[in-house]
Amino acid sequence: MREEFQADLSEVGRLLITMAEAVRAAMRTATGALLTADIEAARAVMDRDAGVDALYAQVEGKVADTIARQAPVASDLRMMITALHISADLERMGDLAEHVAKTALRRHPSPAVPAELRPVFQQMAETADRMADKITTILARPDAELAAQLEKDDDAMDDLERDLFKVLLDDDWPYGAETAIDGALLGRFYERYADHAVNAGDQIVYLITGEPVVDR
Amino acid sequence: MREEFQADLSEVGRLLITMAEAVRAAMRTATGALLTADIEAARAVMDRDAGVDALYAQVEGKVADTIARQAPVASDLRMMITALHISADLERMGDLAEHVAKTALRRHPSPAVPAELRPVFQQMAETADRMADKITTILARPDAELAAQLEKDDDAMDDLERDLFKVLLDDDWPYGAETAIDGALLGRFYERYADHAVNAGDQIVYLITGEPVVDR
Repeated sequence: MREEFQADLSEVGRLLITMAEAVRAAMRTATGALLTADIEAARAVMDRDAGVDALYAQVEGKVADTIARQAPVASDLRMMITALHISADLERMGDLAEHVAKTALRRHPSPAVPAELRPVFQQMAETADRMADKITTILARPDAELAAQLEKDDDAMDDLERDLFKVLLDDDWPYGAETAIDGALLGRFYERYADHAVNAGDQIVYLITGEPVVDR
Repeated sequence: MREEFQADLSEVGRLLITMAEAVRAAMRTATGALLTADIEAARAVMDRDAGVDALYAQVEGKVADTIARQAPVASDLRMMITALHISADLERMGDLAEHVAKTALRRHPSPAVPAELRPVFQQMAETADRMADKITTILARPDAELAAQLEKDDDAMDDLERDLFKVLLDDDWPYGAETAIDGALLGRFYERYADHAVNAGDQIVYLITGEPVVDR
């Protein structure tokens, strides 16, 4: 029974890794679409989001199946519910990549992001990518120290969002309200992506160690 | 065993109703804070969000406890997992009300919303309130027809968001980028609140009827 449960848990873990890789790739592609006004890349992100949703459904199916067959209790059951939380965060990260891609598409053939804002979005995207990479890594191999770094990455993301708003709200902002709004919403998509990555990281630590991360 | 499970399910339902009432009240108070620059109301929403989070934890605890004690399978287990989804949507609706309150607070003593935008936000808030009311009602008493109306409310919300953007993006918009950005983000908070209400409604129908709502 115990061995079977471990096998089920490993299978759930593999599905979560596939999801994490998919939402990392999605945000990379979406950022590319955004910064180069690449309509094909934007469409690819939107098409592939269905794959992320399907993985989400697979995790949930596997968890339900495991609970039904193994009737886990206490920490084993808790782990199953934690896996659902992680997959929900990853699914949402996929949605946020899709929102970035949609913004690129909506403004095509114009770039959604003026030249002044490209560096800050490049940095936000790099931070997001680093975080998704860490999540993929710690899902495969437990590393509480690496998980703890997600918090610092998230602080860096918040700083970048503040930098972004400084530019958007500068008195000399020359691009009008529409571009300012797009910029603010895009900033929020990256910032939310980072928040979900932190949540997922906390849950993964719990999944691996059985120790809840203290509420911040 | 069956009777015990039904009692557990009823208890989960009661917690969900309390959550739904709380997030409905939160958005009402947040809108009041927003439209009248009422700092006390804004703070109250933020303080009370911890109560919503505590209810969310209670639902999850009750679900875990029920699964552990009753070892439900098939549709009973599915219902337990569905309850987790509903509570996650409600928790997120509470967060969105908190975001509205925070925006009011950040701009205090200035109003975050200029006079021209008050009618559209009033309507968005009324739509959100109607949706939260329906969710509370159908949690207490199954009504698939009422649940189906959530979809129409959500369409109305999307139309209102479009109206809002028309004003924000008008060439004669006199309030500058910061107020435009606040308006766009606020619009998004109400629109997301409505999306989560639709999700929750679909899940409630499933919880009650055992019939999944076809993906839209």
